[in-house]
Amino acid sequence: MKVDGTPYRTIWLGADGTTVQAIDQTLLPHRFVVRDLRTMEDAEVAIRTMIVRGAPLIGAAAAYGMALAMAADPSDAMLERAYRLLLDSRPTAVNLRWALDDLRALLAPLPPARRREAAYRRAAEICDEDAEICRRIGENGLGLIRRLTPRDKGGRLNALTHCNAGWLATVDWGTALAPIYQAHNAGIPIHVWVDETRPRNQGASLTAWELSKHGVPHTVIADNAGGHLMQHDQVDFVITGTDRTTRGGDVCNKIGTYLKALAAHDNGVPFYVGLPYPTIDWTIVDGVREIPIEERSAREVSHMTGRTEDGELATVHVLPEGSNAANPGFDVTPARLVTALITERGVCDASEAGLLSLYPEQSRAA
Amino acid sequence: MKVDGTPYRTIWLGADGTTVQAIDQTLLPHRFVVRDLRTMEDAEVAIRTMIVRGAPLIGAAAAYGMALAMAADPSDAMLERAYRLLLDSRPTAVNLRWALDDLRALLAPLPPARRREAAYRRAAEICDEDAEICRRIGENGLGLIRRLTPRDKGGRLNALTHCNAGWLATVDWGTALAPIYQAHNAGIPIHVWVDETRPRNQGASLTAWELSKHGVPHTVIADNAGGHLMQHDQVDFVITGTDRTTRGGDVCNKIGTYLKALAAHDNGVPFYVGLPYPTIDWTIVDGVREIPIEERSAREVSHMTGRTEDGELATVHVLPEGSNAANPGFDVTPARLVTALITERGVCDASEAGLLSLYPEQSRAA
Repeated sequence: MKVDGTPYRTIWLGADGTTVQAIDQTLLPHRFVVRDLRTMEDAEVAIRTMIVRGAPLIGAAAAYGMALAMAADPSDAMLERAYRLLLDSRPTAVNLRWALDDLRALLAPLPPARRREAAYRRAAEICDEDAEICRRIGENGLGLIRRLTPRDKGGRLNALTHCNAGWLATVDWGTALAPIYQAHNAGIPIHVWVDETRPRNQGASLTAWELSKHGVPHTVIADNAGGHLMQHDQVDFVITGTDRTTRGGDVCNKIGTYLKALAAHDNGVPFYVGLPYPTIDWTIVDGVREIPIEERSAREVSHMTGRTEDGELATVHVLPEGSNAANPGFDVTPARLVTALITERGVCDASEAGLLSLYPEQSRAA
Repeated sequence: MKVDGTPYRTIWLGADGTTVQAIDQTLLPHRFVVRDLRTMEDAEVAIRTMIVRGAPLIGAAAAYGMALAMAADPSDAMLERAYRLLLDSRPTAVNLRWALDDLRALLAPLPPARRREAAYRRAAEICDEDAEICRRIGENGLGLIRRLTPRDKGGRLNALTHCNAGWLATVDWGTALAPIYQAHNAGIPIHVWVDETRPRNQGASLTAWELSKHGVPHTVIADNAGGHLMQHDQVDFVITGTDRTTRGGDVCNKIGTYLKALAAHDNGVPFYVGLPYPTIDWTIVDGVREIPIEERSAREVSHMTGRTEDGELATVHVLPEGSNAANPGFDVTPARLVTALITERGVCDASEAGLLSLYPEQSRAA
């Protein structure tokens, strides 16, 4: 997608063929800065500190992390060390494990001398595949959107989204936002309620920024507001991304998604999830019990960063002295609250039968 | 309740017998400042700009506003003007209308020369009654709390609350927090999850501050987190205040309350509401359709105020340039999601029959 007229991906290979470059998302929306990742450790830091974030982008960054490792040292020892270090960077998004398993399976059998080139080639393929997957999710979601009749008297279609599952969460196009971009481009009058998504405000900082840069009408709201809007016919559908969706259709996503799914269900509003296949965890059925939920630093709750009137960045402490905070990063929406999963292969029910109808190769041996 | 050892109410009559003093809640938790309200217009500004807030405190402030009006000019014209101006200060909390109707009904029949004294006396009574009402809500809620068995393996009872319905929202004691203070004082090991409650952060700024000053264990969380905590047995009950509860038991409260009620219902967690009688609107049954929901300034969403590392206050803009925000201030939780209402007269179901069992004088003529 474009930033002030220039097409960008979130991550790409630099001109020297080795350095990996990525937009630093910790500085959006106030600053647009591109970081150079020169080593596997740079890539691990980039994932852990959320310079790159969003499940698909985490996978792509991990793939490039392996390539950077092989560029420094293509030995078996480095291969294993890079796998472990990158895997530990963040626990929840399954795309991380998927990409690392993919690279390790590719590289382990190769003679070390061939690993660097193979790793960079595969990382580039993963990026291209991700962009294509997201483009198709956009097309499949557009089909759903075309069948909705606006509840708002003005005829405008209203979406509500949580966190950031736009192009910034992927290599390009986005997952939850891909259908919205396609609808907007097709001339459908669509407006997006953007949950600011505390504590890190990925909605206010990233989703609002992307939509603004692309010209899609949107309004930022506190995470508390969506239920009220749904009670008053101001939301036609909710659409989110996911960091991990189970074989049974339980959807793990940014904390607070479950609350929006409850409100959607209570008000007869469809709840859709943009789901690329690398985000499906076929090894887990019960998401509430089995998905590890990252507990992040309390500082994300206690401090907010923004820009002051003179344009400088400032960080303010918003809690009283002596009050502590807790910060679970994700929650799980049970499949029963999900209207449909939108994958690159098509739309299906949020259930094992639904997913297997699109991915029959994942059927377990009888 | 106490602030660093000194007992305080939120609002009181100054030593000169005319000036009304109130804690400036827009500056908490970072600054503790007491404001002088010298005229009816000062009282109106205090309500509108949320120097005082919380439904019961709004009522008390409005009563003192009428007294200040009568001190300036006890004429019929001023009586009516003060009523209108104060009533327009904020639309949602029914205690405002209740207090103004009470004062007007008292003062209108009196000769102007007697109005000042009568108004100040009635305002003081309203304050004392409010403190007593809240104390009783605390006792009645304590009875419910004593019957709960902690889900947490450590034996600690966990409450979750939204916005601020503690002593800062009332004259003293609080509504939602009154039972919590009573439980804590009685030696029950209780901990409170405090929803920060964006956009104005009354949870982080006011509830956390109160609980901290009183020594009640608490943890601030993003508004997004409560559903996840309930799914994992970390919440034994949810308790909130209310700005207006209908005859039918629909509960209007700070935006986002409805989402917590949905999550409580989905997880079998009791949802209680601390409800003083001046907050009951006997003229309305269907809360979702009929309660006016205040839309506040978008700036509350787009800007955050806190303290920097050197202790100074700073306000930062947290949205991208060119992105707008919306800010509905309240939502309505349908009675079907409310486990019980805790009033000063006792505990009842959230229904017309439940409320009439406690307030039989409100039965309509057959």
